[in-house]
Amino acid sequence: MNSRCTPPPRGFPEAEFAGRLERAQEHMAALSMDAMLLTTDVDIRYFSGFLTQFFQSPTRPWFLVVPKAGKPVAVIPTIGAVAMSRTWIEDIRTWSSPHATDDGVSLLAQTLSEAGGRIGLPRIGIPMGRESALRMPLNDFARLRQQVDGTDFIDASPLIRALRLVKSEREIDKIAHACASAGDAFDAAPDLFSIGQSDVEAFRAFKIACLKQGVDDVSYLVGGAGPGGYGDIISPPTGRAIAHGDVLVLDTGCTYDGYFCDFDRNFAFGAADDPARRAYDTVYCATEAGLAAARPGASCADLYKAMQSVLGVMQAEGDVGRLGHGLGMQLTEGASNTPWDETELRPGMVMTLEPSLAFGAGKVMVHEENIVIRDGEPQLLSRRAPPELPVLGSCSVT
Amino acid sequence: MNSRCTPPPRGFPEAEFAGRLERAQEHMAALSMDAMLLTTDVDIRYFSGFLTQFFQSPTRPWFLVVPKAGKPVAVIPTIGAVAMSRTWIEDIRTWSSPHATDDGVSLLAQTLSEAGGRIGLPRIGIPMGRESALRMPLNDFARLRQQVDGTDFIDASPLIRALRLVKSEREIDKIAHACASAGDAFDAAPDLFSIGQSDVEAFRAFKIACLKQGVDDVSYLVGGAGPGGYGDIISPPTGRAIAHGDVLVLDTGCTYDGYFCDFDRNFAFGAADDPARRAYDTVYCATEAGLAAARPGASCADLYKAMQSVLGVMQAEGDVGRLGHGLGMQLTEGASNTPWDETELRPGMVMTLEPSLAFGAGKVMVHEENIVIRDGEPQLLSRRAPPELPVLGSCSVT
Repeated sequence: MNSRCTPPPRGFPEAEFAGRLERAQEHMAALSMDAMLLTTDVDIRYFSGFLTQFFQSPTRPWFLVVPKAGKPVAVIPTIGAVAMSRTWIEDIRTWSSPHATDDGVSLLAQTLSEAGGRIGLPRIGIPMGRESALRMPLNDFARLRQQVDGTDFIDASPLIRALRLVKSEREIDKIAHACASAGDAFDAAPDLFSIGQSDVEAFRAFKIACLKQGVDDVSYLVGGAGPGGYGDIISPPTGRAIAHGDVLVLDTGCTYDGYFCDFDRNFAFGAADDPARRAYDTVYCATEAGLAAARPGASCADLYKAMQSVLGVMQAEGDVGRLGHGLGMQLTEGASNTPWDETELRPGMVMTLEPSLAFGAGKVMVHEENIVIRDGEPQLLSRRAPPELPVLGSCSVT
Repeated sequence: MNSRCTPPPRGFPEAEFAGRLERAQEHMAALSMDAMLLTTDVDIRYFSGFLTQFFQSPTRPWFLVVPKAGKPVAVIPTIGAVAMSRTWIEDIRTWSSPHATDDGVSLLAQTLSEAGGRIGLPRIGIPMGRESALRMPLNDFARLRQQVDGTDFIDASPLIRALRLVKSEREIDKIAHACASAGDAFDAAPDLFSIGQSDVEAFRAFKIACLKQGVDDVSYLVGGAGPGGYGDIISPPTGRAIAHGDVLVLDTGCTYDGYFCDFDRNFAFGAADDPARRAYDTVYCATEAGLAAARPGASCADLYKAMQSVLGVMQAEGDVGRLGHGLGMQLTEGASNTPWDETELRPGMVMTLEPSLAFGAGKVMVHEENIVIRDGEPQLLSRRAPPELPVLGSCSVT
């Protein structure tokens, strides 16, 4: 069952980061942006290669300043200096954090001032748009603004979104490895899941299987099970035992070297009733329509419309707002398959196709596959789900 | 080796949330605060019980409004309505997210306006202080401020910090279960780790062991290994093979029902040299000093001073800014063991004691235990580390 090859190498050659920086600085020049201030795990990692789970701790702020010319400057707690020194970043400025009164603010202000120095107001880009958040206390941000008084803060979200939408082959290899490993774990479902098993144990068995198949972390695993279908796809397990006639969905975001997969699989137990089978068939066909529409030059809205045209007849509520999204360093990123997102598909974009359907009394059926846009047909990164709702444990029922 | 009892029940009775709300509203009244606006996973969960890994996706903002009287109001994407309806929250307002132009902002503004209605400027609390972040785009926050023009936003961080510092026995039970399960995995170290093993495989084996012992997720696992010691404790594995003479540290934040443990263990391989042994002894004794100082009425600064007095002679660099911290719904939260944090220890506070020591050429030694402050002596939640640096795999060396 194991279809994996050797895991791709960890990290990236320096040229990967140099390329990201060069493209960023081209955009920055066009926007007359003197520097970008980045505060989140992912934004900092994108430009530095700094990979750590330490961002789980909310205590310390971390900053990366991307100047209009030259390499990024890290302004970080001393605890991160050794790890940051292993990246391609050379200018690493540290302070002892947590600090009683000045958690990096004055050091950051000084660094931003050096990066400015143009005629007129310095313009500093900060991600402010859709899907962004500022990872520093609002009080500290207010102090920073005072210390760099006269600076114009402008939105860097469109710039960063544009850069990250198209993945390099090295990035795609990491996502593909996460997909293949999680796919191997899903393929082992008959050995992992059974009638009478607590959903807590089903989740646990799946996480262990993913780790054994080669992912680094099962950073996201949600799902649900219920008679003939599930009503919710974002919850943890409840302790309920899987019963004959249940449909179980597991939706996983496993990571390899900081890159996610994000797809789900559905399983019936003992038997599948007709409404569940039909719902499965519909979302399966909707995914096929999405695959057929996923061509360079089409838009995310086109993907939405292709899938929605199949779902349309049975679609009711179950509103999740979109039918898939970008994927990479985050479980969800970049473009959304909605009626209003006209982002053009380009080769190298990694997307999920995620049609969902409301049916019966408060049930939903969700499918999800991961693809990369290529010249011509898209490449599936997740192995395609079976065309009929798989039934597990049928022989254990008397 | 397995010292665990039955896992504590998942979730909380409604009285737990009612108590949190009552205490919050007492503080709010004292501050003339009309409502609190909460945007993060943890803040929303503290007042609602809403537990999901869906916050991994940065796409959708989520809001909880805590009014000065009455139960909290959820303002959330439709995709979360079913899961939120299982909590004690009754007033759940939803919008289809992601949205082209208004991702919940106007619905939130309307909800906040209802919660205001006092004479003079409405005062809305938002966490703005140490360890906080606003989980919504800055552009949307600017729009919100326009829509509730005349509202005074004030800092809710001290209020929330004060509430969360002291844990209930139900919360402590969950942390204790995470500690015991991770402790069982550490006890299995001789079967998990070996000379010649890649650190990637060592991390993987430990994650699987933690899951098998009963944690829900290994949300945080960092560490390092090197000859005679490690120089960095926040990094992922590198692929390097563990060698004779290495010292390995693993520091883990495992979760059970949304509550963390956070402690580490050190292991030498084949043999331990004298500098590593002495460094281990020193941080072990520093932890003992911390345990002796951890009494109600003492402060976090007292904990720091007690540990630092032992470390002092050998301490050089390796600046991590503190020697432990609060622990609970987050890997690190609340108080910090620093010279300047005068937070008074009270029964029910869960803390880490985390002395660290720089030694040799760029090496550090870090110990960590998890405790709960009790009347009299503290209760260890992590089983105490062995008093001497454990040596693994000594018989495999010829």
